[in-house]
Amino acid sequence: MVGIIMGSLSDRKVMQEAADALKELGIAFEMEIVSAHRTPERMLEYGASARSRGLKVIIAGAGGAAHLPGMVASLTSLPVIGVPVLSSNSIDGWDSVLSILQMPSGVPVATVALNGARNAGILAAQIIGASDPQTAERLDAFKSGLKEKVAVMNSELKNLID
Amino acid sequence: MVGIIMGSLSDRKVMQEAADALKELGIAFEMEIVSAHRTPERMLEYGASARSRGLKVIIAGAGGAAHLPGMVASLTSLPVIGVPVLSSNSIDGWDSVLSILQMPSGVPVATVALNGARNAGILAAQIIGASDPQTAERLDAFKSGLKEKVAVMNSELKNLID
Amino acid sequence: MVGIIMGSLSDRKVMQEAADALKELGIAFEMEIVSAHRTPERMLEYGASARSRGLKVIIAGAGGAAHLPGMVASLTSLPVIGVPVLSSNSIDGWDSVLSILQMPSGVPVATVALNGARNAGILAAQIIGASDPQTAERLDAFKSGLKEKVAVMNSELKNLID
Amino acid sequence: MVGIIMGSLSDRKVMQEAADALKELGIAFEMEIVSAHRTPERMLEYGASARSRGLKVIIAGAGGAAHLPGMVASLTSLPVIGVPVLSSNSIDGWDSVLSILQMPSGVPVATVALNGARNAGILAAQIIGASDPQTAERLDAFKSGLKEKVAVMNSELKNLID
Amino acid sequence: MVGIIMGSLSDRKVMQEAADALKELGIAFEMEIVSAHRTPERMLEYGASARSRGLKVIIAGAGGAAHLPGMVASLTSLPVIGVPVLSSNSIDGWDSVLSILQMPSGVPVATVALNGARNAGILAAQIIGASDPQTAERLDAFKSGLKEKVAVMNSELKNLID
Amino acid sequence: MVGIIMGSLSDRKVMQEAADALKELGIAFEMEIVSAHRTPERMLEYGASARSRGLKVIIAGAGGAAHLPGMVASLTSLPVIGVPVLSSNSIDGWDSVLSILQMPSGVPVATVALNGARNAGILAAQIIGASDPQTAERLDAFKSGLKEKVAVMNSELKNLID
Amino acid sequence: MVGIIMGSLSDRKVMQEAADALKELGIAFEMEIVSAHRTPERMLEYGASARSRGLKVIIAGAGGAAHLPGMVASLTSLPVIGVPVLSSNSIDGWDSVLSILQMPSGVPVATVALNGARNAGILAAQIIGASDPQTAERLDAFKSGLKEKVAVMNSELKNLID
Amino acid sequence: MVGIIMGSLSDRKVMQEAADALKELGIAFEMEIVSAHRTPERMLEYGASARSRGLKVIIAGAGGAAHLPGMVASLTSLPVIGVPVLSSNSIDGWDSVLSILQMPSGVPVATVALNGARNAGILAAQIIGASDPQTAERLDAFKSGLKEKVAVMNSELKNLID
Repeated sequence: MVGIIMGSLSDRKVMQEAADALKELGIAFEMEIVSAHRTPERMLEYGASARSRGLKVIIAGAGGAAHLPGMVASLTSLPVIGVPVLSSNSIDGWDSVLSILQMPSGVPVATVALNGARNAGILAAQIIGASDPQTAERLDAFKSGLKEKVAVMNSELKNLID
Repeated sequence: MVGIIMGSLSDRKVMQEAADALKELGIAFEMEIVSAHRTPERMLEYGASARSRGLKVIIAGAGGAAHLPGMVASLTSLPVIGVPVLSSNSIDGWDSVLSILQMPSGVPVATVALNGARNAGILAAQIIGASDPQTAERLDAFKSGLKEKVAVMNSELKNLID
Repeated sequence: MVGIIMGSLSDRKVMQEAADALKELGIAFEMEIVSAHRTPERMLEYGASARSRGLKVIIAGAGGAAHLPGMVASLTSLPVIGVPVLSSNSIDGWDSVLSILQMPSGVPVATVALNGARNAGILAAQIIGASDPQTAERLDAFKSGLKEKVAVMNSELKNLID
Repeated sequence: MVGIIMGSLSDRKVMQEAADALKELGIAFEMEIVSAHRTPERMLEYGASARSRGLKVIIAGAGGAAHLPGMVASLTSLPVIGVPVLSSNSIDGWDSVLSILQMPSGVPVATVALNGARNAGILAAQIIGASDPQTAERLDAFKSGLKEKVAVMNSELKNLID
Repeated sequence: MVGIIMGSLSDRKVMQEAADALKELGIAFEMEIVSAHRTPERMLEYGASARSRGLKVIIAGAGGAAHLPGMVASLTSLPVIGVPVLSSNSIDGWDSVLSILQMPSGVPVATVALNGARNAGILAAQIIGASDPQTAERLDAFKSGLKEKVAVMNSELKNLID
Repeated sequence: MVGIIMGSLSDRKVMQEAADALKELGIAFEMEIVSAHRTPERMLEYGASARSRGLKVIIAGAGGAAHLPGMVASLTSLPVIGVPVLSSNSIDGWDSVLSILQMPSGVPVATVALNGARNAGILAAQIIGASDPQTAERLDAFKSGLKEKVAVMNSELKNLID
Repeated sequence: MVGIIMGSLSDRKVMQEAADALKELGIAFEMEIVSAHRTPERMLEYGASARSRGLKVIIAGAGGAAHLPGMVASLTSLPVIGVPVLSSNSIDGWDSVLSILQMPSGVPVATVALNGARNAGILAAQIIGASDPQTAERLDAFKSGLKEKVAVMNSELKNLID
Repeated sequence: MVGIIMGSLSDRKVMQEAADALKELGIAFEMEIVSAHRTPERMLEYGASARSRGLKVIIAGAGGAAHLPGMVASLTSLPVIGVPVLSSNSIDGWDSVLSILQMPSGVPVATVALNGARNAGILAAQIIGASDPQTAERLDAFKSGLKEKVAVMNSELKNLID
C-alpha cells in the first residue's frame, strides 16, 4: 500500500525507519531505489504506474539537491511524503530540506523533518487511517503509547535525581 | 471533511488559498481561527474532537514560532498539514518553517512551502483521493490542467519573442 | 519555587545545569518531563496549576520544533524561561532557537542561549531576587565570584606564557 | 519599577511598545537612551545603580551588534530583558538576535523575539507578578482578553466567508 | 546552438538576459517553457533529444525547489547551466540556489549566481568558444569592453567628486 | 586540455577527484597550485596564457573567501569551473560557496556543489564533449553506467531486506 | 594618505561615507574605481604601487562575490579595510560579507559591517592615529561628540514622552 | 605595542596564534584576560588607559555573544581588531562573527575571519607598519615567504602525482 523509494543505497539506514514504523502500524509496503538523476526514466515509470499498482502513499527520501520527492509528486496524484536526508557534503541539511519543501504551486510534497523517516512512516499510516478505521485505531493506540513512554521517562528521571 | 485553522485573522489572506483549492477540487471544508497561544484549551478541544466530528484532514497555518500545526498533530491521529506563513517580524520565514517542519519522532506534520496554502489544499485532496476514486479522478484532471497552462504560457512566450 | 520541565529524558543532561545553578543560589525547585507533543493534556494541567501550586518561575527546555516553552507560557501568567536544546537531527540548533524565541505578541518566553540551561537557572534566581533581598544578595556574591574566576584565569595564563 | 533603555533614538518606535504594555498592566517605568558604544561610562553607572534606584527589571533594546542588553546584565543582578531591534543595515535581524541571545554562562539575558518590545513589557510585568498578587491578577485578566480577541476575529472571519 | 528553458513564464524577465547576452555574442538560441513539475514527460523528451537536435549547451532557469536544471542534466550529457531565479515565496533565494547547486556526484549543473541569467549566456558562449575560435575572439572583445566600462565609470566618478 | 588549479595543497584531496573523473573519461589534464592571495602575479600569468597554452577548460578549487575561481575567470575567456572546498575554519562551507557562485555580471564561474570536484571533472568533459563526438560518446556510456549502479544497489537492498 | 577603491560606480553611494568620515577627521584621500573582475591588471598595479605612492591605508568596497578587498590585500603589505556592500541580486549581503571576511591565513582584511563605509573611514583614521598624535586628538574629540549626540537624543526622547 | 585580550582562558589556544604572528614579525605585545561580562569595570579601565600605556593596536578575541571587541572599541580611539572565536555552544560561529562585525556607525572594529587570530596578529603589524618602515620591510619579507611556500607545495604536489 505504501511505496518507499530513495535515491541511493546510502539513504537506506535513514529510510529503514519509515519501513519499521509501517510494520509497527500494520501497513504493507515495498522498498526500492529510484534515482531521479541516474534513472529518470525508471522514476517516470514508477510515478506514472503508482496508483494503478495499488499504492496509496509514496514516501521518497533523498539528500543534497533532493529532486526525487518533488519529481515523483509531479508524476502521480497520490500523496507523496518527502524525507530530507542528511547526506555527506550536504550543507548542514539545508539543501535537502529546501529542495523538497519549497515546491511550486500545484505540486505539493508533504515534507517531514531532516532525517525524519520514522515520522514519514507514521504520516503514511495517518493518511491511510483517514479513511480506514482499523488503522485509525492502531494509531490511537500508538499515541497512547507515546504518553506511557513519558511516564516511564519520568520514573527514570526520578531515580536519577534521588 | 477538511478543517482549515489558523492562528490569527492576519493569516487569512494566505490560508484562503487552501480553501479555494479545496473548492476547485470539490472537497467540503470548514475554516476557523484557533490560536495555540491565546486559546490553548479551544485548540485541545478542536484536536481531540476532530475525527469524531468527521474531519479527515486538518490544515493548520501559522507564522513566527508556529506551534499550532504541531500541537494539533499531538492531539489527533488524523493527518495534519502545516502551512508556514510569512508574518510581520518573522525572520524571513525561517522561524515559521522550522517550527512546523522539525517535529520530533512520533508526531509528524506534513509541511508545505512557505505561504504554500494552495498546495496544502491540493495535498488534503490527494490524501482524500488516496482512497476515494472520484477525488482521484478530479486530481488527475487538475494535473492535466497544469500541463495545459504550460502550453498556454509557451504561446505567450512565443508572442513576446516575435 | 521554580519548576524545571523538559520534553524528553534526552534533554536532561543539559537541563541539569539549570538545577545545579538553582542549588548554588539556594532556590528550591522541582524537575519533571512534560512533553508538549506526547502529553499535551498533562502540559495543560501543569501550566494551569503552576501558580496555585506555588511556583514563581518555570524553566522549560526542548529541542527541534520546540513547542513546550511557548505552550506553557500560553497556559500561565508566570514568567517562563525557554532553553533551546541542541538535539540530534536538529539543523544546527536553529529550529530550537527560533521555535522558542519568535513568540507572537501577548505570550513572551524569556529565551536564553542554545543549551544555556545554567543561565536559565541564574535568570530564574534573578527573577526571584527582583523582590527577594536575600536572593539578591546571593546573586551579588555570585557576580563577585565571576570576577574572581577571571583573576584566577589570568594567573593561569601568566604561567602558560612564562 | 521598570527601566526601559535603548541604544539610539531610532529604536524608540519599537521600544515604545514595551512602555505601552507596561502602562496597560499598571506598572511604572522610566525610559532613556543609554548607548553601550557611545556612552559606556553612563551605561556602567546605569547598571550599577539600577537596583538601589528601585528598579526591579530592566528592558534593553538594541540593533546590529547589540551589546547593550548583555553589558547591562553584566553590571547588575536584576533580570534584564533584551529586545533585538531590526535596524537599517542589519543582516535581516540575525546580528541583533544572536548578539543578545548567545550570552556566556553566568550572565543571562531574557531575550524576546525580533522587534518584540511589547512582549518585553509583558514579561517584565510577569516578573513583577511572580511575587505581586495584584499584578498577577491584571495579567490573568490580560490573558482572558487574548481569548476574547480570538472570538472577535472568528466573528470577522465568519463575515468574510459568508 | 543553445537551448534556454525555464519553468514558468514568470521566470522570463530574468531569463531574457541570457538570450540578450547570446545575441550580443552572436550565438543562436531557442527559448521555451519546460516545467519539471507540470510537464515532466515534455522535459524528458527535451533532454533526451537535445544533442541530436543540434544543441551544444542548455541554460535552465527555475525558482523555489528548482528541479529543472538538475533533471535536464540527468537526461543529457550536454553541459547544463543552471540559473537560480528569485521567485515570489522563495526564502530569499536560498531554496533555488541550493536545489540547483548541490547536485549529487555524476550529474553536474554549472550553477551561476542568483538571477545571473546574463552570466549564463556568457558562460554558454565560453563553452562554445572553448573549441570555436570565432566565438573566442568575440569573447575577448567583450572582455576588453568590460575594461572600457570601468574607465567610463571612473570619468563619471571624477565628475561627481569635482 | 583541462587545467586543474587549487589554492593550497590542503585542497588536493578533494581536487584529486576532478583529476580522477577526467582520467576515467579520457581527457588530458595538468594539476597545479596557484594561490590567488599568495601568488597573485602567478595567477595572472596562468589565466592570461591559458588559452594560448591549449587549455579548453579550467577547474579551480578553493575554500573560505575563495577568490581563485572568480579571479581566473576575470583573466581568460575560457570557461572556468569553480569547486567550493570545505576547509578548516570555514563557516560550514557557506563562505566558499558564496565567494565562488555570486560573481558579478560579465564574469561567470560555473559553480558545482561543495566539495563537488568529481562533478567538476565530469562537467569539464561535457564542455569538451559539446563539440567533440568521441568525448560525447564516452559521456553517454558513463551515464549508462550510472543506471547500472542503481540496478546493483537495488540487488543489495533486496538482500538487506530479505 | 588613504586610498578608497570600489568595484563599480554603483558602490559609490555607500563608499562616499568613507570619504566623508575622512574629511571630517582631516585625512587626505583619493577615490577610484578598480574592478577585480573587469580590470585585474589595473588592480595589480594599484596594489603593488600603493605604498610607494604614499598611501598608508586602503579602503576597498565591493558587493556579491566581493574579491577586491582580499585581492588588493594580497598585493600590498599596507592594512586593507574591506567594506561589504549590499548590491542588487546579493543574497541579503551574506555573499559580500563572507567573501571579504573569511580570508585565509597570511592575508588579513580588516572587515567592517555591511554597508559600513563610514566606519571604514573612521578605522582608517584610527590606524593613522595609532602613530600620529594630531589625528589621535581629533579622534578623541570625535568620540566626545558621540556622547553629546546621545545627550541630544535623550532631550528629544523626553520631549516625545511629555 | 599591541595588547591582546580575550574573554576567557578557553579562547587562549586560538588567540596564541596572534601572539605567535607578532613574535615572528618582531612586534612587542602583552596578553591578558579581560571579560566584558564578568569584569566590565576592568575592561573600562583597560580601554581607557590603553593609549596612555603606549599601546598602538588592541586585538580582542571572544566567542558567542562576543561583546569584548566592540566594547573596548567604544573605550579607546586606538584601532581594535576583533577575532570571532568558535566556542562551544556557539551556533556554528555566526553569533561570534555577527556580534563583532556589525558595529554601529562611529565605533568600528576591524574584524578578521572566524578563529583568524593569526591574521589579527599580521593585521596589527600592518597597522604599525603603515608608519614604521622597519616593520613594513619585515612584512614585505613575510609576503615573499608566502610565495615560496606555494612553490614548495607545488613540488610536493608533483611528487604526489608522479
